[in-house]
Amino acid sequence: MMTEVEVDPEQRGGGAKEDSRPMEADGEDAMTRSADATLQVAMETEQNNELPVTPQKPLTGTVVVLGTNQKTASETLQRVRRWSISKYKATRQALSEKMGRGSRTVDLDLEPRLELLKDDRQRYSQVTRLAQTLSNQLAQFTVTQKTLGDAFTELSLKTPTLHVEFGVNAEAQKFLSKSGETLTMAINAFTSNLNTLINKTIEDTMINAKQYEAARIEYDAFRVDLEELNLGPRNTGTLPKLEQAQKNFQSQRERYQKVRDDLSVKVKLLEENKVKVLHNQLWLLHSAVAAHSTSCHRFLEHNIRQVDEHLSDAPSWLEES
Amino acid sequence: MMTEVEVDPEQRGGGAKEDSRPMEADGEDAMTRSADATLQVAMETEQNNELPVTPQKPLTGTVVVLGTNQKTASETLQRVRRWSISKYKATRQALSEKMGRGSRTVDLDLEPRLELLKDDRQRYSQVTRLAQTLSNQLAQFTVTQKTLGDAFTELSLKTPTLHVEFGVNAEAQKFLSKSGETLTMAINAFTSNLNTLINKTIEDTMINAKQYEAARIEYDAFRVDLEELNLGPRNTGTLPKLEQAQKNFQSQRERYQKVRDDLSVKVKLLEENKVKVLHNQLWLLHSAVAAHSTSCHRFLEHNIRQVDEHLSDAPSWLEES
Repeated sequence: MMTEVEVDPEQRGGGAKEDSRPMEADGEDAMTRSADATLQVAMETEQNNELPVTPQKPLTGTVVVLGTNQKTASETLQRVRRWSISKYKATRQALSEKMGRGSRTVDLDLEPRLELLKDDRQRYSQVTRLAQTLSNQLAQFTVTQKTLGDAFTELSLKTPTLHVEFGVNAEAQKFLSKSGETLTMAINAFTSNLNTLINKTIEDTMINAKQYEAARIEYDAFRVDLEELNLGPRNTGTLPKLEQAQKNFQSQRERYQKVRDDLSVKVKLLEENKVKVLHNQLWLLHSAVAAHSTSCHRFLEHNIRQVDEHLSDAPSWLEES
Repeated sequence: MMTEVEVDPEQRGGGAKEDSRPMEADGEDAMTRSADATLQVAMETEQNNELPVTPQKPLTGTVVVLGTNQKTASETLQRVRRWSISKYKATRQALSEKMGRGSRTVDLDLEPRLELLKDDRQRYSQVTRLAQTLSNQLAQFTVTQKTLGDAFTELSLKTPTLHVEFGVNAEAQKFLSKSGETLTMAINAFTSNLNTLINKTIEDTMINAKQYEAARIEYDAFRVDLEELNLGPRNTGTLPKLEQAQKNFQSQRERYQKVRDDLSVKVKLLEENKVKVLHNQLWLLHSAVAAHSTSCHRFLEHNIRQVDEHLSDAPSWLEES
């Protein structure tokens, strides 16, 4: 099911917000998009050159024809011409959208999902950065714990009257340090896997989303073309033009739908994969944190029990303190 | 029981090491010591002015006698003279010890205990600094945990498919953060109490140790004086001098022994107090660490149990993952 609609910029809610951005950034964005579109168009002309092309006026400029090119000069000229026209149309469409003129096709199913993905990516990045900070701080913390543990050990050996007290704290800090190192590694695995999700898996789909956007702009350009011709006067001179525009529109529409469907499948797979990866990673993180707490808790309980047994003849430290 | 011995610098193990220090620092140290000695001597002349003093040649200089002074000019002159002589003798003794000449009295019981205290103070300072670093790092760590917990909460609300997974991690990080804050406070209490022990309790005794050292130098100065006179020729001219030196020696010896006994009592009390304070603080530290681990362990276990109950209809996450 395809739920696309044409949106007039005057009626678009988000349009005004987007248009309020500084012109410079808009220009840059539009250039990137048109560059993407160009790439798409170039691929398009390669793939679909079996499509019927109506005769056009020859170009006035000259084109360098490479010796390895098997096609005739005329064919090459046609391809270059088509490429130029597509590029011009797409750029004009992108600019008119940016300027708040013209209309654009909006996929009401796919585009919100893409927006959600972009937002998720940003949030996951934030979480990953925080987890990385947590891991770095924990690593420093464990180093201090180890050093403190060693200092306690020295004092335990040097102070017979406080041998047990320094010793029990030395063991505690050293164990906590070791367990903390294991937790650091678990958090590092979490951040590493989340980074893969963000910078590889999601990013890969985002590249497809850009290609989809380029195809959408190109399709909209041909759609607007056809609409303008349909609004104009009809006579024997405009009829072939209209016919050609109709053909172009149909081929662009099919191409756009294909790119859209491919992206839709990819986004669905990503959504599922994302949930699976995060589900596992979040449980692993929680388990690692819980395992750290449990091991520390058990060690410290055992530590105190040992001391109590050791001091069973002497009055208990609990009674003393 | 007094276990003091006279030490010839040529036979002292530590003498060579001490003398290898730059002269400048030695001079400064000697000046400080002689200043301490001066203070002691001044106090001494106030307290013991009932002691018999043999007639001495009058001073050639003049002294300003204050109107509020009830004593005669002659008495004041005598006191100033005694003070000057004591000061001169103590400085000469301190310098000759520094230069590796002459002999000094060593208390074989007290002085090793003072050395041990100085060493302990240094080690406790190191442990306190490390504990302070640990506390600071833990404080930063808890802030990151809280921020991460908040980020997880947001994602939990925003992601229905991962509501439980984000939620359980959010709760975990927030609880760990709160418990960590409590542990931070406990470590801060530990460092604060250790700082009091180091900078107040031990420092107080160290000031007494400096006063003891000043009294010891003064005593040694009069002892060396007497020894030198005993080695010289005896006639009617030197006899009163010898008698006076004997008297001075006795009074200085009594004073030195009193200061020594006072310090010995103080050091013994400090040693006991130190053990008591450290015993309590070390158990409090260990208990705080153990309490943190136990509370985290219990919370995380409860956290997982709750999720399991919540998901009892759905397949367990343990089976899923």
